[in-house]
Amino acid sequence: MWPAEGRQRAIIESVTPEIDGGRYAIKRTVGEYVVVEADIFGDGHDQLSAVLCFREAGTERWQEVFMEPIGNDRWRGQFQLSRMGQAHYTIQAWVDHFKTWQQDLHKRVEAGQDVSVELLIGAELIERAAQLQRGDIHDKLRSYAHRLREAQDAAIETALSPNLGELMRVYGERPFVSTYPERRVWVDPIKARFSAWYELFPRSCGPDEHTHGTFRDVIARLPMIAEMGFDILYLPPIHPIGRAFRKGKNNSMTPEPGDPGSPWAIGGPEGGHKAIHPQLGSLADFHELVAEAKKLNIDIALDIAFQCSPDHPYVKEHPEWFKKRPDGSIQYAENPPKKYQDIYPINFETEDWQALWEELKSVIQYWIDQGVSIFRVDNPHTKAFGFWEWCIAEIKAQHPETIFLAEAFTRPKLMKSLAKLGFTQSYTYFTWRNDKWGLTEYFTELTQTPMREYYRPNPWPNTPDILHEFLQTGGRPAFMVRFILATTLGASYGIYGPAFELCEGRPVRKGSEEYLDSEKYQIRHWDLDTPDNLRPLIATVNHIRRQNPALQSDWSLVFHPTDNDALICYSKRTFEGSNRILIAVNLDPFHIQSGWVNLNLAALDLEHWQTFKLTDLLDGRHYSWQGSSNYIKLDPWTMPAHIFRLES
Amino acid sequence: MWPAEGRQRAIIESVTPEIDGGRYAIKRTVGEYVVVEADIFGDGHDQLSAVLCFREAGTERWQEVFMEPIGNDRWRGQFQLSRMGQAHYTIQAWVDHFKTWQQDLHKRVEAGQDVSVELLIGAELIERAAQLQRGDIHDKLRSYAHRLREAQDAAIETALSPNLGELMRVYGERPFVSTYPERRVWVDPIKARFSAWYELFPRSCGPDEHTHGTFRDVIARLPMIAEMGFDILYLPPIHPIGRAFRKGKNNSMTPEPGDPGSPWAIGGPEGGHKAIHPQLGSLADFHELVAEAKKLNIDIALDIAFQCSPDHPYVKEHPEWFKKRPDGSIQYAENPPKKYQDIYPINFETEDWQALWEELKSVIQYWIDQGVSIFRVDNPHTKAFGFWEWCIAEIKAQHPETIFLAEAFTRPKLMKSLAKLGFTQSYTYFTWRNDKWGLTEYFTELTQTPMREYYRPNPWPNTPDILHEFLQTGGRPAFMVRFILATTLGASYGIYGPAFELCEGRPVRKGSEEYLDSEKYQIRHWDLDTPDNLRPLIATVNHIRRQNPALQSDWSLVFHPTDNDALICYSKRTFEGSNRILIAVNLDPFHIQSGWVNLNLAALDLEHWQTFKLTDLLDGRHYSWQGSSNYIKLDPWTMPAHIFRLES
Repeated sequence: MWPAEGRQRAIIESVTPEIDGGRYAIKRTVGEYVVVEADIFGDGHDQLSAVLCFREAGTERWQEVFMEPIGNDRWRGQFQLSRMGQAHYTIQAWVDHFKTWQQDLHKRVEAGQDVSVELLIGAELIERAAQLQRGDIHDKLRSYAHRLREAQDAAIETALSPNLGELMRVYGERPFVSTYPERRVWVDPIKARFSAWYELFPRSCGPDEHTHGTFRDVIARLPMIAEMGFDILYLPPIHPIGRAFRKGKNNSMTPEPGDPGSPWAIGGPEGGHKAIHPQLGSLADFHELVAEAKKLNIDIALDIAFQCSPDHPYVKEHPEWFKKRPDGSIQYAENPPKKYQDIYPINFETEDWQALWEELKSVIQYWIDQGVSIFRVDNPHTKAFGFWEWCIAEIKAQHPETIFLAEAFTRPKLMKSLAKLGFTQSYTYFTWRNDKWGLTEYFTELTQTPMREYYRPNPWPNTPDILHEFLQTGGRPAFMVRFILATTLGASYGIYGPAFELCEGRPVRKGSEEYLDSEKYQIRHWDLDTPDNLRPLIATVNHIRRQNPALQSDWSLVFHPTDNDALICYSKRTFEGSNRILIAVNLDPFHIQSGWVNLNLAALDLEHWQTFKLTDLLDGRHYSWQGSSNYIKLDPWTMPAHIFRLES
Repeated sequence: MWPAEGRQRAIIESVTPEIDGGRYAIKRTVGEYVVVEADIFGDGHDQLSAVLCFREAGTERWQEVFMEPIGNDRWRGQFQLSRMGQAHYTIQAWVDHFKTWQQDLHKRVEAGQDVSVELLIGAELIERAAQLQRGDIHDKLRSYAHRLREAQDAAIETALSPNLGELMRVYGERPFVSTYPERRVWVDPIKARFSAWYELFPRSCGPDEHTHGTFRDVIARLPMIAEMGFDILYLPPIHPIGRAFRKGKNNSMTPEPGDPGSPWAIGGPEGGHKAIHPQLGSLADFHELVAEAKKLNIDIALDIAFQCSPDHPYVKEHPEWFKKRPDGSIQYAENPPKKYQDIYPINFETEDWQALWEELKSVIQYWIDQGVSIFRVDNPHTKAFGFWEWCIAEIKAQHPETIFLAEAFTRPKLMKSLAKLGFTQSYTYFTWRNDKWGLTEYFTELTQTPMREYYRPNPWPNTPDILHEFLQTGGRPAFMVRFILATTLGASYGIYGPAFELCEGRPVRKGSEEYLDSEKYQIRHWDLDTPDNLRPLIATVNHIRRQNPALQSDWSLVFHPTDNDALICYSKRTFEGSNRILIAVNLDPFHIQSGWVNLNLAALDLEHWQTFKLTDLLDGRHYSWQGSSNYIKLDPWTMPAHIFRLES
């Protein structure tokens, strides 16, 4: 089969970044760069040129930057992204006859060869380039060609001049350009990369545990949340809650009258996913919450849990969206032998799948219309992946500012796939990585492998579903340890409060990761002002994160060896090195631990002989260190970590 | 954008083997397997099934084998190839409702739940499958469904039976199948994988150095070549040689009258690439050579060197295929400041590129029509890569038995690219890998990385262009070392003889890799019967290679550490272990070397306590070893290597 153009002699291969051969888009936030590399070569000895081409969202205009060879036929270029939405990039390469000619001429001249014919060849190349140009450039090129044709003494010098080379690099002919297939970048808002999430149950924000909290109660709580330094406030589902098979306190199958039920059992006579649970307030109240939060730079994030209580309007209006059993009943959720009769899963194999997809998308669109742009998606891995890919692309095409956090705690391949197909951020296994080896291995994978092109980790020390044994047994120091790890390992992170800052560590029973008296099933009243609460630490660390750009991105993470497995040490930095943060954490919440850290000095731009100053941003103390080997001692009961800033 | 079918819930990713996202075909030979792996998963808790589908050349019929999960959502399947030509493979996966149902039923029954409705669901699934079938299968399925509907005591046992599971696995519905894009395999003849090449200059086969050898002289040499065990005889270009700027002895610019010129300066008044140099004989003689060789299982391989002497007919007939200089002359080959005025390179940027490609392809087709199916391609990296991809695909579509060996000694990315785009075998850097580290690192890359899917190495200890210093200085032992390395590291290999077996090691000058009195520029007369010649060793090793399938493929190569850098040790084996070969070589041609080899016992199917017997196939001696640590001592002047067969 004939190629369209057989004279394309440049080969472009092994392009990075690229996910699954271009099947999925890479991710960036506004202001970030894409560094693109490729193997680029051609046949024979001719020189090549290559440009990296990119087109930002909302424009048809392609821009280009020249790529440079970095050895072994590898080339590199980069571009910066300024607009949210989907950008595109590709590479073009071609045999550069003028560059080849100029290099060869240099060798011929050095060897003392007669180059009179060569000068004519060069003049022809320049004249052909001139024909493509007008005005000044045309004239300049014509003048160069003329000088070469005159073959005066200066002709060789003119021919070899870098100025001419640069002019021809930009304006020379590009014959038979090879073009790589276009690749995509999702350009997200800054909060996709750098965000601090706070989760709370609005119904627990009332004056006592007998009074259902409201959006107005949440509004009253906003200043405290802002003071702690959070910029996303995530609310569990705010929709009407089903009655049938309602769960009681501590997940009981036999609820007491008045038990409020689980917010994830969505849908009642008052409505479904587009309705508000009446006890929380009105739509106007919700609008006010969104507006008041925005004043404090807090975005309200909602929970997207595409499942229905038996009382959800969909069950009557769209019975075809659910699985029917031979006895005529609707199939409730199961993970045999466990049964979840308060939940009807949606059947994504319904014949009516297109209408279903449209309706689900309209739920997200509805809340966007109410001012919400951030969504935490509940168990996305139990819904058809094809649906998410379609839905997120459709939404983001209109609303590139939206953020979707995938709450999938499942097998690695599924979590990665959800991130690839479009989720902006992803929950992680952080909660179960509590030792040095596990943290090092996991965060190295997250931040130093191609996975980082699509997977933005959002580590949480706790969630309403996960109270890890470490927090159950480690007391306040354990909460401090996990908080500092999450906030410094993750540019984005979240906590479920006030359980977290109040160091709530009581499980429903030994061996369980469920909370005792979980807010999932009952209203809790929290005493926010216990003397030991972690609000001051949280505020300090969030302040440190905002002041230090090194902590606002994940990619610069480097681990530094220590001689004590209870001590973990790592650093982050800005690319140019103007901000360098070194973190050391005592992973043992029970004992003072000390040991030597063996700094990777190159990663910190330090020389082995150099004395350098560090400021611990947690307590303001100053340190002076030298070389790679330095001593650390951390008492979990005072402060289990250092967050050092390296002073330049 | 809507997907065509939104209910495809299975995801298929990270398929191996796959080259550049399917851009290029993988390679196999007839009889070999393709082991395919993929990440396959779906949403939720449902079970999946997956099949590996393949279609051999020359048929529209797809065959399938079930894939099996091997952990972490990775699946594996394999198929064997029986026909030369292009085969295709892909993967299909789907949510398997019956498998899910059967597994869930098992858990429900174990938990003592009422499963009467479940049995009806199962019966429905079986009935739906029955509707797709006829005859016995239909009846069998109906009968199973019936037994489930009756809900007798035995119904549960029936429902859980593996027989039913297997029946439904094969005949059950496959709803909303996900299909991976098709991938290609080039299925080549056996010699593409396992071959022994012998190169000689026919013109040096005459009775003395003053008489131009002929094809008839080569025919007389065939029995000796066959006795040595070679199965491919490769001839440098056999075409008329140009007069203009003809090179003299030792690449002299001032030839003597009667100097025969370089066979690579192709084309004279007698014709070009489809003609035969008159002094070699007639086309009929060539036919006889091909036929006589075939009787000895030797294929004649020709040299494809797409370049022209100034006297080539193309220069007059197709001046548009060459670059014209401003002074009206044709551009000769150059690598500035070096000039090769006896060679005109073809200009692949000619406007007439389609006619050029057709003509060049017709050259190969012409020699195929004369009975040749193996081609050694001279410097393919100096011709447009797009041309080769097109040309090889066109030729192989009609002649899948053809083999193209890429003679590209250039940068790694180019050599790999030529292999990807279609060359059957490739020359290697073997010639310059003379120490343990270099050999280990290089052959590990060649045989244990994804590169092996497309790159078939063909190591040569020498070529007419490359006489490595190791051979210049190491004497006969050096030739033995390099021969045994090439023949046991490479399932395919080649030598340039008789220079090789006669241990010709004289360079044209110190520091050069060119031969003194190179056959490229003059006729040589070789005394084939020197007492020290290596023919007996060559015959022995080629015999060993034919007797031991372990040596007929590259992929099983494992290196075993030794405590002496002059000793290299490695093994090859057949997949099932019936043939295991262990090779140890003394890389020092000057001294006896001894040391301990630390065997990787697992790679040899051995236990650490096990005593095992080895036979050195080079001298027939028997050894008894135990465990991993064993002693070796090799004298380069008697035999610098062991080729052990492990006795079972």
